[in-house]
Amino acid sequence: MRIDIATLFPEMCEYYLNESIVGRAKEKGVFEVYCHNIRDYTLDKHRRVDDTPYSEQKGMLMQCDPIFRCFEAAAQGRKPHVIYMSPQGKVLTQNRCRELSQLSDIFILCGHYEGVDERVIEEIVDEEISIGDYVLTGGELPALVLVDGVVRMLEGTLSYADCYEDESHYSGLLEYPQYTRPEVWHGRKVPEVLLSGHHANIARWRREQRILTTLKKRPDMLESADLDEKDMAVIDNFNKMKNEQ
Amino acid sequence: MRIDIATLFPEMCEYYLNESIVGRAKEKGVFEVYCHNIRDYTLDKHRRVDDTPYSEQKGMLMQCDPIFRCFEAAAQGRKPHVIYMSPQGKVLTQNRCRELSQLSDIFILCGHYEGVDERVIEEIVDEEISIGDYVLTGGELPALVLVDGVVRMLEGTLSYADCYEDESHYSGLLEYPQYTRPEVWHGRKVPEVLLSGHHANIARWRREQRILTTLKKRPDMLESADLDEKDMAVIDNFNKMKNEQ
Repeated sequence: MRIDIATLFPEMCEYYLNESIVGRAKEKGVFEVYCHNIRDYTLDKHRRVDDTPYSEQKGMLMQCDPIFRCFEAAAQGRKPHVIYMSPQGKVLTQNRCRELSQLSDIFILCGHYEGVDERVIEEIVDEEISIGDYVLTGGELPALVLVDGVVRMLEGTLSYADCYEDESHYSGLLEYPQYTRPEVWHGRKVPEVLLSGHHANIARWRREQRILTTLKKRPDMLESADLDEKDMAVIDNFNKMKNEQ
Repeated sequence: MRIDIATLFPEMCEYYLNESIVGRAKEKGVFEVYCHNIRDYTLDKHRRVDDTPYSEQKGMLMQCDPIFRCFEAAAQGRKPHVIYMSPQGKVLTQNRCRELSQLSDIFILCGHYEGVDERVIEEIVDEEISIGDYVLTGGELPALVLVDGVVRMLEGTLSYADCYEDESHYSGLLEYPQYTRPEVWHGRKVPEVLLSGHHANIARWRREQRILTTLKKRPDMLESADLDEKDMAVIDNFNKMKNEQ
């Protein structure tokens, strides 16, 4: 997979992309990423890439031309899937991360200041993606969130292919609580079942915990989760106990 | 406002926090931020902060003690609001960013690997926050997203106090499209009304565009938006035209 990022802060993006799990995946050749400075593509002699919006007294807007020229230079005639990070976009989900991880060529545009001129979105952008219903100072963190979420799903990034199957959001439920050494910490004990070595009991406990955690923290997610009769019994039981309190 | 971040990658966080709009706000003293390396607080001679989870063959989990000791050292007896960035948390919204910007003391814990031992969450965490329904390789990007979204709402960060009032998500609608020079680019013209100088018409056009953009991209948001009769007429008109096509 090849990823190009167009931004006014390429060093900031590169710094993150060289670190930790994503950095190791890049080094191993799991994906390639190129960060482009939009400012390198302006024809303005003061290297300006923004101007005041029409009929607006405040803020600055990124102009079409530097972005377009940056895109042309990066794409070199290829047809990458072009994503603009924007609070107006479709909200990112784990499923969309997985779908995007199937593509071979992605170009991500990061806005800054008040945003970008609408016409360059019409001209080059295939998809607007939002990482959530809030506004940030620029598109760089959202772009990095997207890259991290997508790269994480590529084969070779995580050490175990099955690492994410039990995770939150992978199968519509949150994850079960996890414990590591010591067995007792500040008077809090690891649940007995996890020390029993009884695999069937542990598996049952974990499934129950996933359902209960989701029920308590994100009941909205249960509506679309794939639940069987045993799962429904766990929910009924929890509700009954709650009503009795 | 004071923000403390506990992480295994303090330099990565600091790098972002020194850049751009957030970096300028920090320099101006709008907020203070301290990044702590959890690894500095382990008593293990190999500086380990993680161990295998109980009854699990794969992955590593961050241990309670280094996190707890890091928290104690950072808080120095104060009682900050403690947030754990987690895909299990309540999903962040613009409204929550605004509420958090009213607090004076926030401590953010970033997980890594498979997560953290449940008991330290029970012991110190006040609130789990998720930036969206997807999983990332660590809590650092989510923490930076949270800090960016919150700091942006602090007085003194943006040049104009009213910068965000027209923005996406501030008042339950997406933003209107924006344009800057040149007037024609690649054959695409700036909408006539924006060149007219007629303030009332421009205001009406913008309101209509906000409603239409939200209707096309995020119809779910309209359910809770504050709409008047004129707004409803714009929606009816759009639906009528769509049905006639």
